[in-house]
Amino acid sequence: MALGEFDLIRSFFDRPGLRSHFDDVVGIGDDCALLSLQSNQQLAQSLDTLVEGVHFPKNCDPCLLGYRALAVNLSDLAAMGAEPHSFTLGLTLPDSDDAWLQSFSDGLAELASAHQIGLIGGDTTRGPLTISIQVQGTLPKGSALRRNGANIGDLIYISGYLGDAAGALPDVLRGENPKSVSTIEQRYLLDRYYRPTPRIALGQWLRENGATAALDVSDGLLGDLGHILKASQVGAELNISSVPVSKELESLLGSEKARELALTGGDDYELCFTWPVQKKLQLPESLTEDHHITCVGRIASSPGLVDAETGQPLSPQAYQHF
Amino acid sequence: MALGEFDLIRSFFDRPGLRSHFDDVVGIGDDCALLSLQSNQQLAQSLDTLVEGVHFPKNCDPCLLGYRALAVNLSDLAAMGAEPHSFTLGLTLPDSDDAWLQSFSDGLAELASAHQIGLIGGDTTRGPLTISIQVQGTLPKGSALRRNGANIGDLIYISGYLGDAAGALPDVLRGENPKSVSTIEQRYLLDRYYRPTPRIALGQWLRENGATAALDVSDGLLGDLGHILKASQVGAELNISSVPVSKELESLLGSEKARELALTGGDDYELCFTWPVQKKLQLPESLTEDHHITCVGRIASSPGLVDAETGQPLSPQAYQHF
Repeated sequence: MALGEFDLIRSFFDRPGLRSHFDDVVGIGDDCALLSLQSNQQLAQSLDTLVEGVHFPKNCDPCLLGYRALAVNLSDLAAMGAEPHSFTLGLTLPDSDDAWLQSFSDGLAELASAHQIGLIGGDTTRGPLTISIQVQGTLPKGSALRRNGANIGDLIYISGYLGDAAGALPDVLRGENPKSVSTIEQRYLLDRYYRPTPRIALGQWLRENGATAALDVSDGLLGDLGHILKASQVGAELNISSVPVSKELESLLGSEKARELALTGGDDYELCFTWPVQKKLQLPESLTEDHHITCVGRIASSPGLVDAETGQPLSPQAYQHF
Repeated sequence: MALGEFDLIRSFFDRPGLRSHFDDVVGIGDDCALLSLQSNQQLAQSLDTLVEGVHFPKNCDPCLLGYRALAVNLSDLAAMGAEPHSFTLGLTLPDSDDAWLQSFSDGLAELASAHQIGLIGGDTTRGPLTISIQVQGTLPKGSALRRNGANIGDLIYISGYLGDAAGALPDVLRGENPKSVSTIEQRYLLDRYYRPTPRIALGQWLRENGATAALDVSDGLLGDLGHILKASQVGAELNISSVPVSKELESLLGSEKARELALTGGDDYELCFTWPVQKKLQLPESLTEDHHITCVGRIASSPGLVDAETGQPLSPQAYQHF
């Protein structure tokens, strides 16, 4: 390939912060990467593609982009309760720009080293800017937190706050980044868009301690919760007023618009999970500091998602018409 | 994402020919795919991205494209001697065209079912046509056929014929396909370009029976053989006249041009491997039918690749100046 692939990979991607700490991993430099699992483990894999002009604006800060591209993938591991193991990168670039590559690699490496996840393979090609990352994590066989385990009566929880990333979108589309905006609220929202927090530790704790189902909210709560309901063949009642909204979002957009974005906006990558009503949900102190969680509803036997107060059906489309 | 991702995946990719036959695999439909390995196994992974206008022409037959995209990836598994296990697909499309998707899926499924490799996850996004496939295969721990195992004195072999795909390029760039051209020779070359043969069975046999190093020839023999020499810290003498060239390529382009393409042209996805000189290389009958192999040289102690007849250094650039 035309960018001088071998030098490019060696310079920008075979570096501290992106190397695997697993002794039994063979990474960049042969026809395939190689990895092993312990005998009681499964591998969980997820792939997300980000395209310039579709998932991020043109001339996006490459460091933020590298961070975000890995974060949205790690979030899928969090949703299953997997421990990050390694990732691969398919990077399509219009040209070979050293400063861009260095900054993109720095953004990747910041988050990769925080989660001890090594870049073990990939492909760099010329073309319109497109980033495909596949992450993989490990978990004990048969223990994955699936979408299909919610039971009638289970409580529904959300981590963090919803709607922030959707609230940042107008600024994102104007090409703003957390450093370019003037208010603390805008900076907070842009940071939430570009640097979402993969809830890895929370996901693992939930898997080990009896959550029944989970996913990450990437397309909006109403739609994504619907996937759990469909997979689990149940319905749910949602307490709209308890859906967690940040004070920054509320202060910028007002409470009605903030609520709408919290229900329908994507890109927050918070966990939505279900928990048996019989069992007290008590996060350990190490998690409560980082992971604010809120009960927002309850799994019900009648199919579909309804407003707990009014009994009216809720759908992403319907709510946006309010 | 805007194409109606869930319906699209269900209709075109969750189908016979693309489903995994492994009982312990969880495929499309949750946050992550899940797979297990047997305790003595390693997983070998490889990722290749194909971009419209760079790796294939605009308006390329989607069935050929699906086949080729999987074939070039399977070839990396062949080069390590791995057994195909599963693959994931990152598909970026300008719009949702059912006929295109059906045909692309048919091309994938034809080769996937031939190698019993299931599509277990992926992402579909809107944007310029780009196909990222990650294949993964299994092999006994520590047994992978690496690039770094060639020893001084080893013989160098090539499977099949080289230069055919490069010979097809002018027709490829004109938008021709195997059905649109008029001569048998053109059809043969286009078929070699669009439907390369991943040498899976040969790679496995070589791994089990003592080959010392291997890779697949994707960028041209002179360059790719250089990767084995560098990784193994050896040199080699190449018998240029014995590099295997098809009669079709020779008849279309003459022997001199055919030889140049065989040495420098990419995209053939044949295996180049090294074999101990002390040991007779005797393929079983089941393989000799499908896999023509030719000895083309010998690993030497002095660094670099030289012409066995003249002792002159050989490089992709130098040879193209002949």
